[in-house]
Amino acid sequence: MAYRETEKMRQRKAQARQKIIESTWECVADGGFQSARVTRIAGLAGVATGTIYRHFESREDLFAEIFRLATQREVDKVAEALAITGNAVQRLDHALRHFAQRALKGPMKAWALIAEPVDPKVEEERLAYRRAYANLFEQAIRDGIAEGTIPDQNTRLAATCLVGAISEALVGPLSPTQTSELPDNDNNDNELVDTIVCFCLRGLTGTRS
Amino acid sequence: MAYRETEKMRQRKAQARQKIIESTWECVADGGFQSARVTRIAGLAGVATGTIYRHFESREDLFAEIFRLATQREVDKVAEALAITGNAVQRLDHALRHFAQRALKGPMKAWALIAEPVDPKVEEERLAYRRAYANLFEQAIRDGIAEGTIPDQNTRLAATCLVGAISEALVGPLSPTQTSELPDNDNNDNELVDTIVCFCLRGLTGTRS
Repeated sequence: MAYRETEKMRQRKAQARQKIIESTWECVADGGFQSARVTRIAGLAGVATGTIYRHFESREDLFAEIFRLATQREVDKVAEALAITGNAVQRLDHALRHFAQRALKGPMKAWALIAEPVDPKVEEERLAYRRAYANLFEQAIRDGIAEGTIPDQNTRLAATCLVGAISEALVGPLSPTQTSELPDNDNNDNELVDTIVCFCLRGLTGTRS
Repeated sequence: MAYRETEKMRQRKAQARQKIIESTWECVADGGFQSARVTRIAGLAGVATGTIYRHFESREDLFAEIFRLATQREVDKVAEALAITGNAVQRLDHALRHFAQRALKGPMKAWALIAEPVDPKVEEERLAYRRAYANLFEQAIRDGIAEGTIPDQNTRLAATCLVGAISEALVGPLSPTQTSELPDNDNNDNELVDTIVCFCLRGLTGTRS
C-alpha cells in the first residue's frame, strides 16, 4: 500500500516544527546561538535529535530560520514605533528608545541577533536585519529633511551611523550589557537609553535635545 | 653531538617568522582573513607549509598575532592624531578623519580588522582593539568636558557610540566600502568622511560644525 500523508500527519509535522523553533529560540534567548546545541533543543522540544534534521537540513539552516523569524518581529516593532503621530525627530526618538529598551530587557537575545559571532548562513540573515533597520531609519530621516526638522544630509550614511552607534552602545563588546557594568535597575536603564538616544539624535540634528 | 642553536640559526628563524607575518598580512590586505590560506601564505613567504606550523601553533594563532600587530599600528595612528595641538573637539575631528581616511584607503584591511567574521581567537584580539579606540576617544571626551568644549555626558557610552557609528558607516555590512556604492574618487571620499565625522561630532557636542 502506497504511503500517503494524511491531514493529521501534516498537522503533527507542523506542530513538531513549531516546537523545534520555539525550543531553539528559548536556547538562543538563554545563551546565544553558540549554546544552542541540537541535543538540548531536541530535549526541550521533546523530539529525537534525528527529527530536527528531518525538518531542517542542518543546524545552520535551523538557526537561519530562527534568525529570520526573530528579526522580522524586531523590525516590525521598530516600524510600529516609527508610525506614531509626530515629526520625524519625535518618531525617531520613540523608535530608538523602543529599540534600546527592548534590547536592555533581553540583552542575550539582542546580542545573539546583533553581535554574536555566528555561522556565515546566519550572518547573511543579519545583513538583511541591519539593512531593514537602516531602511526604516533612512525613510524617517528623509521625512525629517522634507518637513524641515532634520538638516539636509546623506540619509543613507546617517541611517548607517545610527544603526552603528545604537548597536555598538547596546550590544557591542564594549556595551554595558556585555560587561560587568550592566545596569541593575530601571533608573540606570533609563539613563543608558537617554544617553544613547541623545547621541543619535544630536548626530542627526545637531541640536541638544 | 647534541643539537645546539647557533646565532645564525636563530637569525634565520626570526627572518622566516617575519616573512610569514608579512606574507600573511599581504593576503589579509588582499582578501581578508578568510582568503588567507596557509598554502598561499607559505607560497608568498617562500617556505614550506610545515614551517609555518613550527612558528605558530595554528592558523588561528598566526592570525591572532597578525591582528595584534596591525591593531597596534592603527591604535598608535589614532593616538598620534589625537595628540595635535588644539581643543578636544578639534583633536577628535582630526583623529576621526584620520581613521576614516585610512579605512577608505585600505577598505579590505579595515574590514578585516573591524568587521570580518573571524575565529574566536581573533575576535578576542578585536575586543582589545575596540577597547583601545574607545579608551583613546573617552580620554579626549573627558578633556573636552573639563575644558568646556564638550557638554557633560557619560564619556564611556559616548566613546562607544563614536566607535560604533564610525565603524558601521565605514566598514559595516551597509558601508559604501562593502557595497557597490564605493566612492571612486577623492571628492566622494572626502564627502563620506565629512558626513561621518560630522555625525560623530554633532552626537558629542550637539553643535552643527
